[in-house]
Amino acid sequence: MLLKTMVLPIKSGRPIVVLNEADAYELGVFEGDRVQVRYEKRRGIFTVQIAKEIVPQGHLGTTDFVLKGLALEAGQEVEVFPARKPKSVEFIKKKIGGKKLDQEEIRTIVFDIVNNALSEIEIASFVISSMLRGMDFDEIEWLTRAMIESGERLHFDRGTVVDKHSIGGVPGNKISLIIVPTVASAGLLIPKTASRAITSASGTADTMEVLADVNLSIEEIREITEKVGGVIAWGGATNIAPADDRIIRIEHPLSLDPRPQLLASVMAKKGAIGARHVVIDIPYGEGAKIESGEMARALANDFIELGKRLGLEVVCALTYGGQPIGRAVGPALEAKEALKAMEERRGSASLLEKSLGIAGLLFETTGIANDGYSYAKKIFESGKTLEKFREIIAAQGGNEKIKADEIPVGDKTFTITSQRNGIAKKINLQAVNEIARSAGAPKDKGAGVYIHKKRGDVVKAGDPLLTIYAEKEWKLDNAIEVARAEAPIVVSGMILEVYGRSR
Amino acid sequence: MLLKTMVLPIKSGRPIVVLNEADAYELGVFEGDRVQVRYEKRRGIFTVQIAKEIVPQGHLGTTDFVLKGLALEAGQEVEVFPARKPKSVEFIKKKIGGKKLDQEEIRTIVFDIVNNALSEIEIASFVISSMLRGMDFDEIEWLTRAMIESGERLHFDRGTVVDKHSIGGVPGNKISLIIVPTVASAGLLIPKTASRAITSASGTADTMEVLADVNLSIEEIREITEKVGGVIAWGGATNIAPADDRIIRIEHPLSLDPRPQLLASVMAKKGAIGARHVVIDIPYGEGAKIESGEMARALANDFIELGKRLGLEVVCALTYGGQPIGRAVGPALEAKEALKAMEERRGSASLLEKSLGIAGLLFETTGIANDGYSYAKKIFESGKTLEKFREIIAAQGGNEKIKADEIPVGDKTFTITSQRNGIAKKINLQAVNEIARSAGAPKDKGAGVYIHKKRGDVVKAGDPLLTIYAEKEWKLDNAIEVARAEAPIVVSGMILEVYGRSR
Repeated sequence: MLLKTMVLPIKSGRPIVVLNEADAYELGVFEGDRVQVRYEKRRGIFTVQIAKEIVPQGHLGTTDFVLKGLALEAGQEVEVFPARKPKSVEFIKKKIGGKKLDQEEIRTIVFDIVNNALSEIEIASFVISSMLRGMDFDEIEWLTRAMIESGERLHFDRGTVVDKHSIGGVPGNKISLIIVPTVASAGLLIPKTASRAITSASGTADTMEVLADVNLSIEEIREITEKVGGVIAWGGATNIAPADDRIIRIEHPLSLDPRPQLLASVMAKKGAIGARHVVIDIPYGEGAKIESGEMARALANDFIELGKRLGLEVVCALTYGGQPIGRAVGPALEAKEALKAMEERRGSASLLEKSLGIAGLLFETTGIANDGYSYAKKIFESGKTLEKFREIIAAQGGNEKIKADEIPVGDKTFTITSQRNGIAKKINLQAVNEIARSAGAPKDKGAGVYIHKKRGDVVKAGDPLLTIYAEKEWKLDNAIEVARAEAPIVVSGMILEVYGRSR
Repeated sequence: MLLKTMVLPIKSGRPIVVLNEADAYELGVFEGDRVQVRYEKRRGIFTVQIAKEIVPQGHLGTTDFVLKGLALEAGQEVEVFPARKPKSVEFIKKKIGGKKLDQEEIRTIVFDIVNNALSEIEIASFVISSMLRGMDFDEIEWLTRAMIESGERLHFDRGTVVDKHSIGGVPGNKISLIIVPTVASAGLLIPKTASRAITSASGTADTMEVLADVNLSIEEIREITEKVGGVIAWGGATNIAPADDRIIRIEHPLSLDPRPQLLASVMAKKGAIGARHVVIDIPYGEGAKIESGEMARALANDFIELGKRLGLEVVCALTYGGQPIGRAVGPALEAKEALKAMEERRGSASLLEKSLGIAGLLFETTGIANDGYSYAKKIFESGKTLEKFREIIAAQGGNEKIKADEIPVGDKTFTITSQRNGIAKKINLQAVNEIARSAGAPKDKGAGVYIHKKRGDVVKAGDPLLTIYAEKEWKLDNAIEVARAEAPIVVSGMILEVYGRSR
């Protein structure tokens, strides 16, 4: 069928092709089926959407992105045919059927995901069947390798490239802001690509963005790393392991985190930037993503095994995930807390012990120091961490002279106080997250939560428990509403349980 | 956030709500997240799509369907908030986790599917996890009951309601056109709702549509059944078991057919029309959906058990599914073949034996006859089947005087002949299907395939094997191309295999 191309005013990361319902009926294609679009020798296969009025009969609605890909202009006539499903659909069905996939099959699926050849339903089927049918280490290795190969990669001519990754789920985890400069100032290369928050109040990229530009190309990441030794960039601005972003978009609605995809996602990013030594931070505890030590250790073993297969030395740190790291949650509040600690060369014990502990593990695994923690602490206390952090900020186009106290935070605040004497028995991590997000984080950089009382702290009636920061009054109101409904910090009497008392 | 509603020129079966990307960012919602839309006391929860230009900032793009549901006009200001996921998402995660769902949980999922509260990714997750984790008979019963309750239902004050269902996969299965009038002329009520083709060349609804209107409301189905005893309508025009249509839309891209959904889908439709006796036709054989007798028998037992739980008497007929029923494939060709058989009171053995055999089982299970097949054959040969079929055609607004020879078929034809002497060893059902579809079926009513040689027929070089019918030259060309690539009818020498011959 001959159709005239037209450009739709739609933004989408996926190639969109829209048929009028009469043309679709004529072609015998349903929503979600595929068509081949041909013009001279050029051809592309696309999943079809069907519209009534937005695309008139005889037209093919599409986007600039699609036209460019086929080197076409709007208004040109193209041939449109029903097309078969890509081979990878058969491979996904094979996994649904419980069979092991071979390397070529996994590669085909990953490249089809990257090339937008698979629909959301098909990717969801792949993710859920990998989760329920499982993947063995061969398959996970092939998945990781395909993710690396289907995206951009970094290569450095000299130096030792290291990296760290924290499994998510613990609010306030701004440790990369301290680890990266500490490690870089010892001469290691650490081109850290970080994520933005999806369900949390601030990702490392959101926090770093308060101080510098994080939307760096892979070329910029390479240059800055060569120049100052470290960088903290948003991975989403690069094309590193792009399959992962598509898979995460599918996992998000059901908050799924299948083991094969989790392992491949983390390790593909490390492999793609050329890291040889990696520390994985696995926080566990009540309310964290991973609740038991047993699960955390199993995951650690998986990472180590996968690392071996990929030629990466992996060290896993099981960390305490039962409460926030430091006291600040939200982009500006976290950047402020991290910078303040560097300025004062001291800070919250949970923040410094964790940051310097992980930097220390990188020093040990690369052979730089036998007692890595002490080595990292010395760097931090000498002021070299701050100095290097300022270099990194400058290299990423930020104001390297900024002081922690100058970082603006939301001016609409509300403090929740304790109604009773006792101790802070539990911090509800989900609730802290939700309050900070309702207050506007991560979009409103100044929004977030400051926690006054952490687990085990003695609390008197009237003591502040946490302060909510927001940039907008209506968001502050939303956050207060959530805080009232959720009890983010539970205060109980000093006597928690009593045994053997007669009635 | 306050947004002004605007109507988008989009056709969709689902409620669509589109935010400008800046507003979505401000609200902190991603594509696929949910928002609550409020106006005075009215509120609705919708899954969000994100656009750049089609919806300007400050506006909420949506459809008439959504506005009507909230009793709103275009241009009114509404409040928009991020909303939580519906409870059913938790229940889907429970099934992913391998746990048995209770009746209320399954009911909630089904009603949320019907009310468009779940996204495609979420429904896909439900379907695939039910498939891989399995459902026990309690869950399948609850799924079926929820499907029945969430849609329209039929009730008749008097008479015995019966129905039949054929598991798909065998081309040319026009048997309902003969079964329905045969059964109705014996005084039973058979309000048959049929499907249109999705992957086949013609569904029963497509075939019947050649002769009469099949887009009947549930009220019309009731009236016609009361008047003439039977009807052949398109189920999709009614709201019977609407969850099933949504689920099928998800299964289609991967051609999945999980046991729980297959059983519930068939039985919900039978339950909703008030059937008390049902015959399920389960074709099996090489190339059919069900390839072995063992699988067919297991499925039969499942249907019988589910029927018991629902108070329906189910009889299953395992039928020969290794080649097409009759010789015609495609809407008009099939209608012609069925009507011709009724006119001549004889026809292809596979068509008549199967149709009258299944009608006969309905006579036996309702106690009308001890030897159902003979009883059905007598009705058919007496001309009563044709007479009743004409009444049904008239009641459905068709021309009851039409003769088989007057039914128009495609005037573009091409006949494939045999290149050798031998016997027709195998008919490739998938290929027959694909040829007929490429020729334009089911959309072009006159398109299809006529099979001259069936399995076991003696073939001489130059004998016609099959004729392709099309309404359009370019579709005929497509179909010929497919036929040449696929070898729909395999002719081999009479000697198939030779043992014990010395080299």
